[in-house]
Amino acid sequence: MALIVQKFGGTSVGTVERIEQVADKVKKFREAGDDLVVVLSAMSGETNRLIELAKKITDQPVPRELDVIVSTGEQVTIALLAMALIKRGIAAVSYTGNQVRILTDSAHNKARILQIDDQKIRGDLKAGRVVVVAGFQGVDEHGNITTLGRGGSDTTGVALAAALKADECQIYTDVDGVYTTDPRVVAQAQRLDKITFEEMLEMASLGSKVLQIRAVEFAGKYNVPLRVLHSFQEGPGTLITIDEEESMEQPIISGIAFNRDEAKLTIRGVPDTPGVAFKILGPISAANIEVDMIVQNVSHDNTTDFTFTVHRNDYDKAHKVLDKTALELNAREVVGDTNIAKVSIVGVGMRSHAGVASRMFEALAKESINIQMISTSEIKVSVVIEEKYLELAVRALHTAFELDAPARQGE
Amino acid sequence: MALIVQKFGGTSVGTVERIEQVADKVKKFREAGDDLVVVLSAMSGETNRLIELAKKITDQPVPRELDVIVSTGEQVTIALLAMALIKRGIAAVSYTGNQVRILTDSAHNKARILQIDDQKIRGDLKAGRVVVVAGFQGVDEHGNITTLGRGGSDTTGVALAAALKADECQIYTDVDGVYTTDPRVVAQAQRLDKITFEEMLEMASLGSKVLQIRAVEFAGKYNVPLRVLHSFQEGPGTLITIDEEESMEQPIISGIAFNRDEAKLTIRGVPDTPGVAFKILGPISAANIEVDMIVQNVSHDNTTDFTFTVHRNDYDKAHKVLDKTALELNAREVVGDTNIAKVSIVGVGMRSHAGVASRMFEALAKESINIQMISTSEIKVSVVIEEKYLELAVRALHTAFELDAPARQGE
Repeated sequence: MALIVQKFGGTSVGTVERIEQVADKVKKFREAGDDLVVVLSAMSGETNRLIELAKKITDQPVPRELDVIVSTGEQVTIALLAMALIKRGIAAVSYTGNQVRILTDSAHNKARILQIDDQKIRGDLKAGRVVVVAGFQGVDEHGNITTLGRGGSDTTGVALAAALKADECQIYTDVDGVYTTDPRVVAQAQRLDKITFEEMLEMASLGSKVLQIRAVEFAGKYNVPLRVLHSFQEGPGTLITIDEEESMEQPIISGIAFNRDEAKLTIRGVPDTPGVAFKILGPISAANIEVDMIVQNVSHDNTTDFTFTVHRNDYDKAHKVLDKTALELNAREVVGDTNIAKVSIVGVGMRSHAGVASRMFEALAKESINIQMISTSEIKVSVVIEEKYLELAVRALHTAFELDAPARQGE
Repeated sequence: MALIVQKFGGTSVGTVERIEQVADKVKKFREAGDDLVVVLSAMSGETNRLIELAKKITDQPVPRELDVIVSTGEQVTIALLAMALIKRGIAAVSYTGNQVRILTDSAHNKARILQIDDQKIRGDLKAGRVVVVAGFQGVDEHGNITTLGRGGSDTTGVALAAALKADECQIYTDVDGVYTTDPRVVAQAQRLDKITFEEMLEMASLGSKVLQIRAVEFAGKYNVPLRVLHSFQEGPGTLITIDEEESMEQPIISGIAFNRDEAKLTIRGVPDTPGVAFKILGPISAANIEVDMIVQNVSHDNTTDFTFTVHRNDYDKAHKVLDKTALELNAREVVGDTNIAKVSIVGVGMRSHAGVASRMFEALAKESINIQMISTSEIKVSVVIEEKYLELAVRALHTAFELDAPARQGE
């Protein structure tokens, strides 16, 4: 008998029929003897509908009041699921974030969970009830309703699992697990049985959007075993956990992530003096533009070239900021490119394997793909290439790192 | 500078445009220097939509969970109005029933208010904020969300006004006040400037459905001056208050109420023995049928006839119950009639005026309208007549009691 937290997203509860299906699934677990806490999102589209309603009143809704409105989305689904469970003879009770209570800070629309009072839930579990909790929402110390921001329901699930010391937090979604890469790009992509929190973080932030990054961080911090599963298909999914075993069979890399949302900007011929990096990135950050990769090469004639990537939507804005900086720094020129893509190999295995990066570069060279930027971390190597080569690069790397071998089991 | 509680119903907040109009109205009061607490219903149709959603899951939704769902209706409108006020430069904050907190018993779907914590609201008023409160909902001592049942927003408004000792509770609706009778029946019907709580109770329960009965009772009990006004038209409305002045000009009766939703049942020739009334009405009440008028006349040959009225929808059910009782009591027969209407004259003035009833009967006799049943209270006389004479009777009485004199002022 395990204590399991199950989280179902918006599409999984998007219609009354789907809520009935979720109830069937929960019932099966309950009848197998598990104690269950179920976290739900709003019906898909509902949060947007509520935000649109607020926007009809004002373009800039007060964050506190916006939270009062959008939090009603999950409040509806939790009660519907509780009703559906009770109809099936399964004792159940629903709780809003305020009722649990999930205490957050007061940063409306993007609050962070501070503490969860698990007494009420434990009492219900003891009494044999399935507890259905509204995801994405909480309450601050003054009793104001808060929301965690988009995707916050994953975080609610993980935080509840951590507070209750649950055996597993299951995230039900529209994919059946985490893959070695996007199956739409590489047909031989494999579902991973297991992946570490660190790898998942690199995969998620690099564009494999299965789980919310904050939820993975949270799970890693509190060591909550996290499992990604398909809402309406059977299967073991992918377990995200700490790196316990360093077995021989462990693959060097777990997956290939990629991202075509970025653009590249280079400022050439800036004086190579202390503080120049801040002079370049300070104004970018002041303009609220997020920077991803940053590369500065060794200097040449006391000047250097400085390159970074931003989201493609921020490219024009960043270019203007940089033009101004270039004038001030008396730099030679500013050049940029939006036709780029970032490809990364991710894997804790590379920590103990030399030559992973060179194997990557070799595979790309074989396909005559030019590498424009390189950036590395302990468990990842990212390169920027011309966008048109993206699919080719991902497929080449997937093969080079032996990820498309048939049916990998128990790695 | 007064403290005013204003309540706007579902049609007054039925669209974003109407919410903007409500905000304009609230702003005007605020700028005139009043302290304001605004109570809102859900957007019209929203409560029904939410109930329908629940009914898709189950015909018999658990009352606790149904309250979780339907309470979201007002939660949306309060935040929208708060946003609309803030957009207009008026400081405002919204509260759910739980946040205020409005403590109720645990009778889900039909809870009664036990206590209101006014500290939070007083703090906001002191800080110059308009406080927008969700009507119709509260929270029980265990933190469960409750609702007060249909029309409960009026009750919330009155309860808040009582707790805050407000100068006035204004109920905004789609009529501009309480009339001497239904203007659709009598063109000369007059808006009353003032009416007593007792009269309003008799008018409301007799079919002039402007205000929820519970709200009027509540207002009378705590002596909260209640004003009925039109949401989007200017005008003084009707003030419902205690009977302070007994001036010469006070009219004998304030209004004519009527009701065509009733049906009449008579059991003839029942033995006139103690306990027979209970033997007849006990089974009716056990069948959950509400009885309105009850008339038993003096006996004749040791048997008597017993007549009562029920809602027309309950007629068939009541008839069956009564047939069974008739057999047991060895009564002569059961007869019934659904083509009836009830007409009542209401007024505290009749307490000090003799002959009001006979003046009523005279007016009806002049029109050759036969009276089938009579029932009286201290401030009301009701008669049951054949339904087809209803309009004629109301008009005759309206004239007989001088209600359609032009422009009655300051009564």
